[in-house]
Amino acid sequence: MFKRYLPILSWLPHYSTRLLGADLLAGIIVTIMVIPQSLAYAILAGLPAVVGLYASLLPAVFYAFLGTSRTLAVGPVAIIALMTGAALSKVAVPGSVDYVQAALVLSLLSGLMLTIMGFLRLGFFANFLSHPVIGGFLSASGLLIAVSQLKHLLGIDAGGYTAVALLESLAHHLKDIHWPTVAVGVGTLTFLVVTRRLGRRALTALRLPAGLAALLVKAGPVAAVVVTTLISWRLDLSSHGVATVGAIPAGLPGLTLPAFDMSLWHALLVPALLISVVGFVESISMAQMLAAKRRERISPNQELVGLGGANLAAAFTAGMPVTGGLSRTVINQESGAQTPLAGLFAAIGIGAVTLALTPLLEHLPIATLAATITVAILTLVDIGLIRQTWRYSRSDFSALAVTLVVTLVEGVEAGIIAGVALSIGLFLYRTSRPHSAVVGRIPGSEHFRSITRHDVETVSHVALLRIDESLYFANARYLEDTLYSLVASRPELTDVVLICSAVNLIDASALESLDAINARLKDSRVTLHLSEVKGPVMDRLKLSDFLDHLTGRVFLSTYAAWAELHRVRD
Amino acid sequence: MFKRYLPILSWLPHYSTRLLGADLLAGIIVTIMVIPQSLAYAILAGLPAVVGLYASLLPAVFYAFLGTSRTLAVGPVAIIALMTGAALSKVAVPGSVDYVQAALVLSLLSGLMLTIMGFLRLGFFANFLSHPVIGGFLSASGLLIAVSQLKHLLGIDAGGYTAVALLESLAHHLKDIHWPTVAVGVGTLTFLVVTRRLGRRALTALRLPAGLAALLVKAGPVAAVVVTTLISWRLDLSSHGVATVGAIPAGLPGLTLPAFDMSLWHALLVPALLISVVGFVESISMAQMLAAKRRERISPNQELVGLGGANLAAAFTAGMPVTGGLSRTVINQESGAQTPLAGLFAAIGIGAVTLALTPLLEHLPIATLAATITVAILTLVDIGLIRQTWRYSRSDFSALAVTLVVTLVEGVEAGIIAGVALSIGLFLYRTSRPHSAVVGRIPGSEHFRSITRHDVETVSHVALLRIDESLYFANARYLEDTLYSLVASRPELTDVVLICSAVNLIDASALESLDAINARLKDSRVTLHLSEVKGPVMDRLKLSDFLDHLTGRVFLSTYAAWAELHRVRD
Repeated sequence: MFKRYLPILSWLPHYSTRLLGADLLAGIIVTIMVIPQSLAYAILAGLPAVVGLYASLLPAVFYAFLGTSRTLAVGPVAIIALMTGAALSKVAVPGSVDYVQAALVLSLLSGLMLTIMGFLRLGFFANFLSHPVIGGFLSASGLLIAVSQLKHLLGIDAGGYTAVALLESLAHHLKDIHWPTVAVGVGTLTFLVVTRRLGRRALTALRLPAGLAALLVKAGPVAAVVVTTLISWRLDLSSHGVATVGAIPAGLPGLTLPAFDMSLWHALLVPALLISVVGFVESISMAQMLAAKRRERISPNQELVGLGGANLAAAFTAGMPVTGGLSRTVINQESGAQTPLAGLFAAIGIGAVTLALTPLLEHLPIATLAATITVAILTLVDIGLIRQTWRYSRSDFSALAVTLVVTLVEGVEAGIIAGVALSIGLFLYRTSRPHSAVVGRIPGSEHFRSITRHDVETVSHVALLRIDESLYFANARYLEDTLYSLVASRPELTDVVLICSAVNLIDASALESLDAINARLKDSRVTLHLSEVKGPVMDRLKLSDFLDHLTGRVFLSTYAAWAELHRVRD
Repeated sequence: MFKRYLPILSWLPHYSTRLLGADLLAGIIVTIMVIPQSLAYAILAGLPAVVGLYASLLPAVFYAFLGTSRTLAVGPVAIIALMTGAALSKVAVPGSVDYVQAALVLSLLSGLMLTIMGFLRLGFFANFLSHPVIGGFLSASGLLIAVSQLKHLLGIDAGGYTAVALLESLAHHLKDIHWPTVAVGVGTLTFLVVTRRLGRRALTALRLPAGLAALLVKAGPVAAVVVTTLISWRLDLSSHGVATVGAIPAGLPGLTLPAFDMSLWHALLVPALLISVVGFVESISMAQMLAAKRRERISPNQELVGLGGANLAAAFTAGMPVTGGLSRTVINQESGAQTPLAGLFAAIGIGAVTLALTPLLEHLPIATLAATITVAILTLVDIGLIRQTWRYSRSDFSALAVTLVVTLVEGVEAGIIAGVALSIGLFLYRTSRPHSAVVGRIPGSEHFRSITRHDVETVSHVALLRIDESLYFANARYLEDTLYSLVASRPELTDVVLICSAVNLIDASALESLDAINARLKDSRVTLHLSEVKGPVMDRLKLSDFLDHLTGRVFLSTYAAWAELHRVRD
């Protein structure tokens, strides 16, 4: 019972020195690795860089106690940061106190929603974000984030939260390019791309173990941060107009209280919901992938509670919305983390840095962080997935394409809503015009297959019609049309068998249609039979009086119907 | 080709004197019968009574040429009149010139929408109004209309367009009850209820033929109109405060031009859409019922064009939104109408009345019309359907109940939207948690049934799992959960067969899940097989590389899988 709500109880009693060693090492590596991205994502959201560090402390600790994944790492992530920026810029001016305050409200709302969804067991809601919608959204977000970083890489003061607005604003200010900033930004970008592309191969050639080589390549951003900070400090780049992180208040975050301002809450309600759902989907996808590798189980509803707790913690400790992140989890995993304690150790490590070492970050150029984000984020643009989806299904592709385009043109929230609405609409449309097949017997067997696809036996006075969909309101009329056409086109018919092997539900509308069909076929002296009706569907039919009116019989199998009806006339 | 867009061409060439006689007679009867209800529905919509006559002229002629139903009668109907009143009262003051103008705009918009939907072949949209939603809506409308007529029956000046608002307003003005009006209203009401309940039996007892008796009973409202008009005229009731129809401009309607006022159009857009859809659903349900009786075919998309044309005609001839009506169609049918010419003759008849006899209607009490509406409309309240839906399915019942309650409390538009949204939501929820069953072989047969419902053969190292739903984004994760639980709970498993007889689609999300399942089961040394994959689904799978990775085989039948896997180990 307690284990279900405090998953930490299921592994802590079995904890060992061996696990402690592994978790400690992972904690130290993660501390170093995630500092640049934490700062970068806070800036992506338009918040002071230090907020990214704050949001990596207590939220990670809360998740360690409440979450069901052993190695998921929780903190600020790129997409959530982007959505946070888009939401906050509608209610406050970036850089203002109100803006930072609104970030707390957003974390609080998101935390409350996730927790409530968890207690109401609404984890299944995330299922309505289909893979194509997520794919289109991630690709668009990658492009959008990359475009949003251009201003930092070029030293231009541009604004906007859609790709179109950003590019327009950039084009407008192109004459203001600040070349020293470009030198830092493009220099870092080139360094990161090269280490990513060639680093691992080069290091493996130096006979380093593959695992260490991979980790060193991932340390590229850390090296870039250290080197550009040193250069910036020695050359005093900020006095030459290169934007830097600037003075960071030393020390741990104080306890913050999100503003209780109804109009602000109201304005942030929809963004908070979308941030919650998107964050949950990113997090749970990652957690399930890891759990699958390690043969563990994830509870989606408990994950909601874990992420909810993390966001509530962020709201009260000067943070920003957080979730389980792709890159930080991969780092945690590859550093050898075994239990959530690794996350706890990393939080302690980042806390130590926040407490003591923030003055070192003062000279860190923003352009370096922008380069870090750009390189990390462009991997989200998944051309392979787009191509593969196009090949597999035009309908899935259209959901992907609409999500991608609307996200780029109108922004992240509109993109997700459009994608989900289109997916649902297409599904409903498809089920409203179900596939059906007139089938015949595969000679000598008890199997029946479509007469257009297979060489099968048929009898002229019996039609065997298989409907490949549940019968419900959206296709009830279509069912009538299909049956009436069938009967109209074959005047010699005396018996129609409706094969229900693919019918998982008959709702009240469809039942009424079946009643109408039965009565109308009776007028035409055609008997209606059913076959292969599933248990739950049959139970339901017995609650109505349809079976009393049915002119024909309900056969256990299509073969039984065939044997019976075939015989009657021969 | 022409026949498809002008259905009149398919029957006019075969027209005969016998058909002409029948149609003429029906036209005359319909003329007399529908005048009271046409006046009443115009008043229900808050419009001058004569508008109801105007809307029974040209719209009916247009439908006769464009519609595919032979005996559907088009004109003002109760529900559409109620929705028209609710929509217009939001944009203009009842009784004002603007109000009448707005009715023309509403007809125009509705006509355009219906026509465009017809050309775009969007007739299937009406399918999303499920039977329970329509049932709940009709019952609520019946109650709502009855409540809305109370003020006319009681001679009270009350307002509002939701049941709650109407009753509140009535309660507020209850002291203003006008007893002479009550005498007319309640007197008529009693007369109509009695003729309806006892009339046919009494007339049949008098040895009149059943058909004639039925028609005479239907003439009850005509008798009530004639008698109360005479009384009202002789006693000069209007000078005693009984509201009457009053002076009606004699003559046919002039050509009217709906106002081109963008803000008005915008305000009426959603009501026009709902009026179009509800009108179409009422009309097509009736048309299909009639066509079924007469072995004719209805084309839903051409019906949209026919109703669209009728509403456009209404917009340009001082009318109001129209559709195929329940009661007027039944009268037309029972009077022996054979072709749409009957509708044309009735339109000519009503035109003659409008031209010459409107002065006779001046003294007709509104209370008489209110009583006519009330009696006709209360038959919409279908307690039997409500009880039956409750018994058959709680989910269908909840859609019905929500539509009914929201329509009463919030109004017709909110009611329909809430009902449709809930139906779709429930359908999606259900398909997101599909039924699945582990099956075994019915001894000695090639059939497989659920191990919990039947006494079947099983083998411990093979699991046969039947998923009773298409696999798509909303249930992809559920599929993973189901399979992982199955494998986790049976460590001796070596083979899992996924029976796809009820799988009508595998979308890109589900394909990705199947890929993940396949890979994960492979890690656990469990082989994944499929069986009974349908043709279209298989075609789709061949477009992906899933089949190349699949660890097991795709069996034509579950029996083939059983035979093969059973043998392997024994």
